[in-house]
Amino acid sequence: MKRTLGTCYYPEQWPSDIWAEDARRMVAAGLTWVRIGEFSWAKLEPEPEKYDWAWLDRAIQTLGDAGLKVVLGTPTATPPRWMLTRHPDMLAVDRDGRPRKFGSRRHYCFSHEPYKVECAKIVGLMAERYGPNPHVAAWQTDNEYGCHDTTISYSDAARVAFQGWLAKRYGSIDQLNADWGNTFWSMDYPSFDDVDLPNLTVTEPNPAHSLAFRRFSSDQVVAFNRLQVDLIRAQTDAPIAHNYMGRITDFDHFAVGDDLEIACWDSYPLGFLEDRVGADAARQRAFARQGDPDFQALHHDLYRAVGKGRWWVMEQQPGPVNWAPYNPAPLPGMVRLWSWEAFAHGAEAVCYFRWRQAPVAQEQMHAGLLRPDSVDAGVMGELAQITAELADAPDVVPVQAPVAIVFDYDADFAWAVQPHGAGLSYFGLVLDMYRGLRALGLSVDILPATARDFAGYGLVLVPGMMMLADDLKSALNDSGAQVIYGPRTGARNAEMGIPNPLPPAIPNLDVTVTEVESLRPDMPIPLASGGNIVNYRDVLAGAAQSVLQTANGESVAMRDGLHTYLGGWLDPVAMADFLRAACVQAGITTIDLPDGVRIRDTGNERFWFNYNSDAVTCHGRTIAAAGVLRETRA
Amino acid sequence: MKRTLGTCYYPEQWPSDIWAEDARRMVAAGLTWVRIGEFSWAKLEPEPEKYDWAWLDRAIQTLGDAGLKVVLGTPTATPPRWMLTRHPDMLAVDRDGRPRKFGSRRHYCFSHEPYKVECAKIVGLMAERYGPNPHVAAWQTDNEYGCHDTTISYSDAARVAFQGWLAKRYGSIDQLNADWGNTFWSMDYPSFDDVDLPNLTVTEPNPAHSLAFRRFSSDQVVAFNRLQVDLIRAQTDAPIAHNYMGRITDFDHFAVGDDLEIACWDSYPLGFLEDRVGADAARQRAFARQGDPDFQALHHDLYRAVGKGRWWVMEQQPGPVNWAPYNPAPLPGMVRLWSWEAFAHGAEAVCYFRWRQAPVAQEQMHAGLLRPDSVDAGVMGELAQITAELADAPDVVPVQAPVAIVFDYDADFAWAVQPHGAGLSYFGLVLDMYRGLRALGLSVDILPATARDFAGYGLVLVPGMMMLADDLKSALNDSGAQVIYGPRTGARNAEMGIPNPLPPAIPNLDVTVTEVESLRPDMPIPLASGGNIVNYRDVLAGAAQSVLQTANGESVAMRDGLHTYLGGWLDPVAMADFLRAACVQAGITTIDLPDGVRIRDTGNERFWFNYNSDAVTCHGRTIAAAGVLRETRA
Amino acid sequence: MKRTLGTCYYPEQWPSDIWAEDARRMVAAGLTWVRIGEFSWAKLEPEPEKYDWAWLDRAIQTLGDAGLKVVLGTPTATPPRWMLTRHPDMLAVDRDGRPRKFGSRRHYCFSHEPYKVECAKIVGLMAERYGPNPHVAAWQTDNEYGCHDTTISYSDAARVAFQGWLAKRYGSIDQLNADWGNTFWSMDYPSFDDVDLPNLTVTEPNPAHSLAFRRFSSDQVVAFNRLQVDLIRAQTDAPIAHNYMGRITDFDHFAVGDDLEIACWDSYPLGFLEDRVGADAARQRAFARQGDPDFQALHHDLYRAVGKGRWWVMEQQPGPVNWAPYNPAPLPGMVRLWSWEAFAHGAEAVCYFRWRQAPVAQEQMHAGLLRPDSVDAGVMGELAQITAELADAPDVVPVQAPVAIVFDYDADFAWAVQPHGAGLSYFGLVLDMYRGLRALGLSVDILPATARDFAGYGLVLVPGMMMLADDLKSALNDSGAQVIYGPRTGARNAEMGIPNPLPPAIPNLDVTVTEVESLRPDMPIPLASGGNIVNYRDVLAGAAQSVLQTANGESVAMRDGLHTYLGGWLDPVAMADFLRAACVQAGITTIDLPDGVRIRDTGNERFWFNYNSDAVTCHGRTIAAAGVLRETRA
Ligand SMILES: [Zn+2]
Ligand SMILES: [Zn+2]
Ligand SMILES: [Zn+2]
Repeated sequence: MKRTLGTCYYPEQWPSDIWAEDARRMVAAGLTWVRIGEFSWAKLEPEPEKYDWAWLDRAIQTLGDAGLKVVLGTPTATPPRWMLTRHPDMLAVDRDGRPRKFGSRRHYCFSHEPYKVECAKIVGLMAERYGPNPHVAAWQTDNEYGCHDTTISYSDAARVAFQGWLAKRYGSIDQLNADWGNTFWSMDYPSFDDVDLPNLTVTEPNPAHSLAFRRFSSDQVVAFNRLQVDLIRAQTDAPIAHNYMGRITDFDHFAVGDDLEIACWDSYPLGFLEDRVGADAARQRAFARQGDPDFQALHHDLYRAVGKGRWWVMEQQPGPVNWAPYNPAPLPGMVRLWSWEAFAHGAEAVCYFRWRQAPVAQEQMHAGLLRPDSVDAGVMGELAQITAELADAPDVVPVQAPVAIVFDYDADFAWAVQPHGAGLSYFGLVLDMYRGLRALGLSVDILPATARDFAGYGLVLVPGMMMLADDLKSALNDSGAQVIYGPRTGARNAEMGIPNPLPPAIPNLDVTVTEVESLRPDMPIPLASGGNIVNYRDVLAGAAQSVLQTANGESVAMRDGLHTYLGGWLDPVAMADFLRAACVQAGITTIDLPDGVRIRDTGNERFWFNYNSDAVTCHGRTIAAAGVLRETRA
Repeated sequence: MKRTLGTCYYPEQWPSDIWAEDARRMVAAGLTWVRIGEFSWAKLEPEPEKYDWAWLDRAIQTLGDAGLKVVLGTPTATPPRWMLTRHPDMLAVDRDGRPRKFGSRRHYCFSHEPYKVECAKIVGLMAERYGPNPHVAAWQTDNEYGCHDTTISYSDAARVAFQGWLAKRYGSIDQLNADWGNTFWSMDYPSFDDVDLPNLTVTEPNPAHSLAFRRFSSDQVVAFNRLQVDLIRAQTDAPIAHNYMGRITDFDHFAVGDDLEIACWDSYPLGFLEDRVGADAARQRAFARQGDPDFQALHHDLYRAVGKGRWWVMEQQPGPVNWAPYNPAPLPGMVRLWSWEAFAHGAEAVCYFRWRQAPVAQEQMHAGLLRPDSVDAGVMGELAQITAELADAPDVVPVQAPVAIVFDYDADFAWAVQPHGAGLSYFGLVLDMYRGLRALGLSVDILPATARDFAGYGLVLVPGMMMLADDLKSALNDSGAQVIYGPRTGARNAEMGIPNPLPPAIPNLDVTVTEVESLRPDMPIPLASGGNIVNYRDVLAGAAQSVLQTANGESVAMRDGLHTYLGGWLDPVAMADFLRAACVQAGITTIDLPDGVRIRDTGNERFWFNYNSDAVTCHGRTIAAAGVLRETRA
Repeated sequence: MKRTLGTCYYPEQWPSDIWAEDARRMVAAGLTWVRIGEFSWAKLEPEPEKYDWAWLDRAIQTLGDAGLKVVLGTPTATPPRWMLTRHPDMLAVDRDGRPRKFGSRRHYCFSHEPYKVECAKIVGLMAERYGPNPHVAAWQTDNEYGCHDTTISYSDAARVAFQGWLAKRYGSIDQLNADWGNTFWSMDYPSFDDVDLPNLTVTEPNPAHSLAFRRFSSDQVVAFNRLQVDLIRAQTDAPIAHNYMGRITDFDHFAVGDDLEIACWDSYPLGFLEDRVGADAARQRAFARQGDPDFQALHHDLYRAVGKGRWWVMEQQPGPVNWAPYNPAPLPGMVRLWSWEAFAHGAEAVCYFRWRQAPVAQEQMHAGLLRPDSVDAGVMGELAQITAELADAPDVVPVQAPVAIVFDYDADFAWAVQPHGAGLSYFGLVLDMYRGLRALGLSVDILPATARDFAGYGLVLVPGMMMLADDLKSALNDSGAQVIYGPRTGARNAEMGIPNPLPPAIPNLDVTVTEVESLRPDMPIPLASGGNIVNYRDVLAGAAQSVLQTANGESVAMRDGLHTYLGGWLDPVAMADFLRAACVQAGITTIDLPDGVRIRDTGNERFWFNYNSDAVTCHGRTIAAAGVLRETRA
C-alpha cells in the first residue's frame, strides 16, 4: 500500500473557471484525492425535484481529467430550505424541547421517516448518475454524524420511533417494566405508547430508560446510514466511507462501520484540545499549538478497528480553526507531524480540510491550504515536505500491536447515563489507560466489544466496560493473554441492573466489588507504591491475590493467573507502574518515554513523535520540536 | 423514652418469599421500625380505581408478625402513569415554562385540584384499611415535600390558585397594588385575573410579588398535607409524620408540622456537604467522608422544634449515596456518629435508608444495610455497635438549651427573593451563627417565629428575620434574656416594604440602619477586635452603646441593656468573640472547641463528637477519629 | 456654559402634599433639573384612552414654581398591564423562544407595530399638553433602550419586520444569498419569507445572517425613537434627549443621537465594575468602592460625541445600588469624584438617581439622596461640597483632545457575531486602548464611524473596526494625523465576508494579514521590547517597516509614513510603550500616571482624579484618596 494525500473541495463555492487551475495545483502539490459534494444539495436540487447535475458533472470531469480521484459525498447533512417547508417537523428537538432550526447544518432528526425518503431519493439519483463514473473512486455518506450533538433528538418523530423500537426489543410492556425495575417509583407503563422520552423529568429518569433511549438513538444512525449505503452499493464497487467526528461517542461507530469499506475521521488536534480532550488547563496551555499527544492516536487506532483495517483522515486541520473557545495557530511542523502520525497508525490517506479558505459563511476563519485570495498558505511548505518524504517512504507493512484495548460504545452510553462522579466518562477512562500504554512506548490495537479472538496479544485491557457479555468473558478467559478488567467492568447487566452475583463475576477470578465511590478532584487516594486512585473507585473483596494496595493497605487490584481486576482509576504515576508491571508479566518490552514523546511501530518502521515545543533527547535520539523521526525496523 | 432504630423497606420491589427472612434479619439487627409503602401507588392501584391491597396486607402482616412496627407512607409522591393520561395538566411547570415530566418522582403540582382529589381517594382508602391495623404504628404523608425543587410551580393551575389566594389575602386589587407599590414601574393590575406568576419577567419582578408567590406556594404544601392528615386522623390514633428533606426551606415546615405529631427528616451528611451546605472547597475536602459538623445538628434542633419535641431521622445515610456531584464512602465510624448525634439531640428513632440496596432504577448506586445480593454491607458492624450501646444507655432526659435561635421560613423566603449579594441566604446566616454557638460548646434550641415565651433562655438570637412582628418585638423585649438581633432583622414590613421609622425599630434600642451593603467574598471588612464582617453589612447610627467596631471605628453592634443589634455577618473569628462575650453577659458557660469537635448535652448525658479524620485531644479527653464520647451529666 | 446638577423624581410615587417640600429641598441642595414621568404610564392612562393629566400638571407646576427645570420623560418603557390584554403578542421573545413577560419594565418588542401606535398616541398627547409648558425645559424619550438585553427580540413581529428589512436592503433573494455566501452549507433561501431569525440553529448561524439581524435590530431602535422625537419636536423647541445605559452597544447610539439634541447616559460605576467592565477579580476588588478608573470616562467621551457636544449624566449613582452581584457602598468622596469627572469631560448636567430611596418594589435597595424616611442620606454632604465648588468654578471652555479613537457600533456587532476567542469584544479592545491613552495622561475624543474630518488630531486610533469604508480609508490617509489601525481593522467587507485583496488593504501601507489567531488567557505572546500580545493576533506580512516584534522576531506592528497597522491586542505594558512611542511620533506630550490616577483637560482647567483608596503623590502633587484636584490651565 502507498500512502496518499488529498483535500476537501467545494467547486459549487467557486467560479467554474478556476476549477481547472485548482485541480492542477492540487496535483502539483502531490494530492491524490479530492472530496466534493457533501454540502451541495441546494445546488443539486434547487427546487423540489428540479435537479441540476450539470455543474457536478463538469466538476468531476475537470478534477478527474487533472488526474485526481474523487470522493463523492452525499449531501444529506444539509437539506435545503424548501425541505423545511415540505416537512416542518423534520427538525431534531433539543433536551429542552426546542426545535433545532434551519440556518446551519445537520438540521434533521434521524427518526423522521419522510426526510429519510427524501434522502433516499437524492442519494439514489446520485448513485445512479455517478456510480459508474470512473473518476468517482470512493463515496462518503452524509457528514460527521453526531456532530453538534445531533445524535439524540427529543422530537415527536423520535418518540414514536422509540416506542416502536421498545416494542420490538421487549415484546411486552410487562417485560419492559420488569427489565427496567419500574416498580421502584411507581414508574410502570400501561403500554408502549405511554413511554415518553427521558428528558425534562422532575429528577433523573430511570437509567434503564435513558440507556434504552441512547441505544435506540444509535440504532437510528445506523439505519439512516445503511439506507444510503444500500443505494450506493447497488450502483458501484467503489468503497463507501463515512467521516466520523472526533470524540463523538453517542452512536456505535462499529455498527455503522460494518456497512462501510473505509472508516474516515476528521482530525482537528488544536480545536479538540480546547473543547473535548478533557485535559486540565496546564496541559491545554502546554500543548495549545500541538494538540494532545494521545488523542489523535487513539482515534487512529479506533478507526483502524472500525474500518477493519481500512481508514483515512478525511479532514486534517491545516492551520487555525474557527470553532474552539480559542483558536491558535499550530506550531510550525505540526501539520507534518499529524500527517505522519496518521500514516504511522496505518492511514491510507490524509486529506486536508480545506483546499481554499472560504471568505464567507460559518467557517471563514478556518484555515485552508490556500488563503482566500488563492495564494499558498504557509502550510504548503510542510505539505511539500510531506510529499517528498512520502515519495521516499517504503511500502506500508501493517502489524498487530502487542497490546489491545476493548472499546465498547454501549459502555460509553452507560457511563454517560450514570457517570456517578461529575465529569467522569468511559472515553476519559479509556484515554487515560491508552495514554498510560503510549507513555511506555507501546503501539496499541483497539478492538470492538464483539471481538472474541485475542490471538497474538500479550495484554488485553477491558476498562470500564459496564456490560460484559458472558461469551466475551469466556473468550477472554480462554485467550491466553494477560487481561486487565475494570474499574467498573461487568458492573451492569444488559438492562442496566446490578447483576447478582455482584460484579465483576469473572470466571476464575475471585473478586467482588462490595462498594463503589466517586472522588472529588482534590481527594485522590494514595497508593502504597506511589501514585493515586482518582475519580472512581471499586472497593474489592475476594480471595484473589492483591497486587496493588492503597496506602491504608486496601486492595486496588487483584489477580488470579492471567486475570487482574483493577478497582481504581489510576493517575499517570500509578498507571505507569501498574501497566509496566503488567507488561513484564506479559513479556512485552516497554520504553519509558518523556512527556509529549511518543512511538508508533509498523511492520517495517518505527516512528518517534515529539509533541513538545522544544527538542527532546531520549534513548539516544534527539527529536526536534514538533519533530518526526522515522527509523527502519527489522 | 427509649431510643429506637429502623429502616426503610420496599416489599413491592422484592419477591414476597424473602419478606419474612428480611423481617427476621431486621429484628436481629436491633431494628424496631420499618417504613413502607411511600412509592407503591402503581402496585396499589395498577389501573384507575382497580385496587390491589393483598400484597400490602401480607407485607404488613409479615413485618408485624416478626415484631416490627410499621410506618406506613402515603404514595402520593409517585402517581402512576395512568394518572397523567387522566390529568395531563397535573404536572408542575418549571421557571422556564416547561412541564416537569413523568419518569421519576414528585411529578405533580400542589395546586392541581383534580390531582388532590385523586390523592384524597387513595389516602382515604389506605387510612380506612390500615388505620385500624395494630402493626401500623405510625404514618408518613407523601415523601420529602419540596425535594427536587418541587414546591414552586409555574403551571396554569398554580396561576389560577395564586390569583384566588391573592384575592383572599388582599381583598381588593387596589389594596394589592398599594401594598406592593405597583406604581413604581406602572405595574398596577386592573384585576386579580391580570396577575401572572413572577417568572420570565424582563428583569426582576417586584419583590413583593415574588414574596407573595412564595408564601402562596408554601401554603399550598400545607393544604396538600392537611388534606391527607385529616383523612388519616379520622381512622387512627397513630402518630402522623412527614419526612422533610435537608436544606429545603421553600415552604413553612412549622406550618406543616402543626398538623403532625412527629417531624422526621432525611439526613444525608455526605451528599449534603457536596451539594447544599455551602462550605468552601477546603472544608468540603476536609469533611468529605464525614459531613459538615453542624449541618445535621442544626436540622436536628430545627425538627425538634417543628415536631414540638417529637422527631426522628427517617432516612439516615448508611454508605455512599448516588446523587451528589461526588459520592465518597463515609469514614468508618461515621454512621455510628451520625446516629448518636441524632439521639443526643433528642431523636426518638433513627431509620436507615434503605434496607437493601436496589439493583435497578434511579438509586441503584445508593448504599443500603444489605448489598444487592442480600449480604450484609460493611455498615452492619457499626449498626451492631449502636444496638449494643443503645441497650446500655440510660433513658432519655430532655432538657432546655441555654441558647435559642429563632428560625423563620418567611425570612428565608424574603432573603431568597432579595439576597442583595450573590449566594447569600437566610439559612446560611443562621447556620453560621449556629456554628458559632456550637464552636463554643453550646447546645441550642430552635424556636419558630410564633414563639412568644422565652423563659429559661439566657440568650436568644434573632438573625436576619426580615419581618419582625410587633408582638414578637414586645415578647423579646419582655423576655429577660439577652437578645441579639440582626443583621437585617426587622428590615421589611409584612409586604416587603422598608418600614418607616427605618429598621430595626426595636423598642428601647436606639439603633437605625442608615445604609446596607453586600460584600465581595474577597472584600471582608476588618474589625478592630479581630475577625471580619463578610457578605452583608448594615451601617448603624443611633445613641445605643457601640460594642463592636470596624477597624475604622464604625459601629458594627450596638447595645442597650439586654438588647443588641448586630449589623454585620461575622466570620468565624469575629463570631466566636462576639458570641462568647454575649454568653458572658448572659451568664452562660462556654467551652472553646477545636474545629470539627462538638458537644451536645441532654438532661443526663454529655456527648462529644469528633468529625475529624484524626483523633483529637482537648479538655482532658481524647476522642477517636469519627468518634463519640458519652459522659454522664449531673 | 455653567455646569448644573439635578435629580430623578417620581411624584406619582409619593403623596402630593410632600411635593412642594421636596422641591424646596432640591433647590436648597443646589439642584437645577428634575427628571420626572418616565415610568408613569399607568397613572397617566389608567385605562385605555382614559387619561389623568391632573396629577402631572400639578407636579410640573409645583416643581417649576420652586424654580426647578423639568425634564419630562415619555413613559413607553413601562406600558401598563391593560396593554398586554390588548396586544398579547407585543412582548419581546428571548433567544430560547420564551416571551419576556409583564411584571417589571421594558416588556415590549421594538418591532411590534400596534405597540408603536400606542406609543405614538401617548407621546403625542404628552407633547401637545406639555410641549408649551415653560417649566418643561427638556424631554427624554423612553428609558435606557437596550437595558436588560432588550434590543434583540426573537418574536414573530421581529421576524416579519426583519424579512421586510432584508427585502429592502438586498432587493432580491438572489442578492442576499450571494452576499451571505449561502451556498456554503446549502443555506440558500427561496424567498425572503423563508429567512428565519438566527436563533436556535443547530450550530452557529451564518455570521452574515447574524450581523444583518443585529443591524436590523439596531435600526428598529432608531425608528422607535424617531417616532417619538418627531411628535415631541412638533410641539416644542426644548431639547430632546435619551438616557443611554452604560456598556449597551447592541444598537447604534450615534444613529439614535442624530435625532436628539442631547445625549444622556446613566452612570453606575460600582455596579458596572461588578457586572460589565470585564476587569479581573483583583481589579474588581481594588476598585470595588470606587469603580473602574476609565470606564466612566470612556462613556463620557463617547456620549459627548453622540450628543455632538451636548451631553449629561442623567442618572448618577449616589450610594449602593441594588442590582449588581455585590453592592458595596462607595468610598466617601467618590460621588464628588464621579460628578467632577463628568464635568471635566464636558457634561452640562449631572443628575442623581434618585431623589428619595423607594421603600417598595424593585429598587428599594437602591440608595437615593434622601433615605426612605426623607432624612438626608450621607451623600448630601458631598453634594453640598460639589454645589459650593461649582459656584466657584470658572465657565466651561471646551477644547479638542490631541488624540481620537473611532468608535463604530457596527464593528461591535461584528465582533459580537464573531469574537473568534471566548469573551473577546470590540468594546473591550477599545477600552484597553483608551485605558492605555489615559494612563499616559491624555484626554481623548471619540469619533463616530462617519467622521471624515480629523483636523487637529495628532493621533487617531482605529482599533478593531472590522468594516472600514473606502472613503474613511481615504479620509484617514489624507488626515495628516498619525493613524493606528487594527488589530482586525478592515477585516471584513460590508456583508461580513473576507475582502480580496486581504485585510487590511490600507492605501500606501504594504501590510497583509495572512493568518489570525486567538489566544488562551494563559498564553500571551511575549514581545521583544517587553509586554505581550494577548487575546487576539493578526499575523502580518508585507514591505512596510516593522516597528514592533514578538520575542521570536515576528512583526506585530508595521508602519509606512504616518500609518501603522497594529496586529496584536496589547497588554498594559506593551500598550503603554507602543502608544508612548506613537505620541512621540505625533508630537504629543504624555505623562506616565500611577495606576488609578487620571487626568482630564478642558480649555482652561486640568483635573486630577485619584481612584485609589489611598492618597497618591506623583508629579509634584498629592491627591487624596478618592480625591479631585482642579488646576487652572493656560
Ligand atoms: Zn468537518
Ligand atoms: Zn429520600
Ligand atoms: Zn436607570
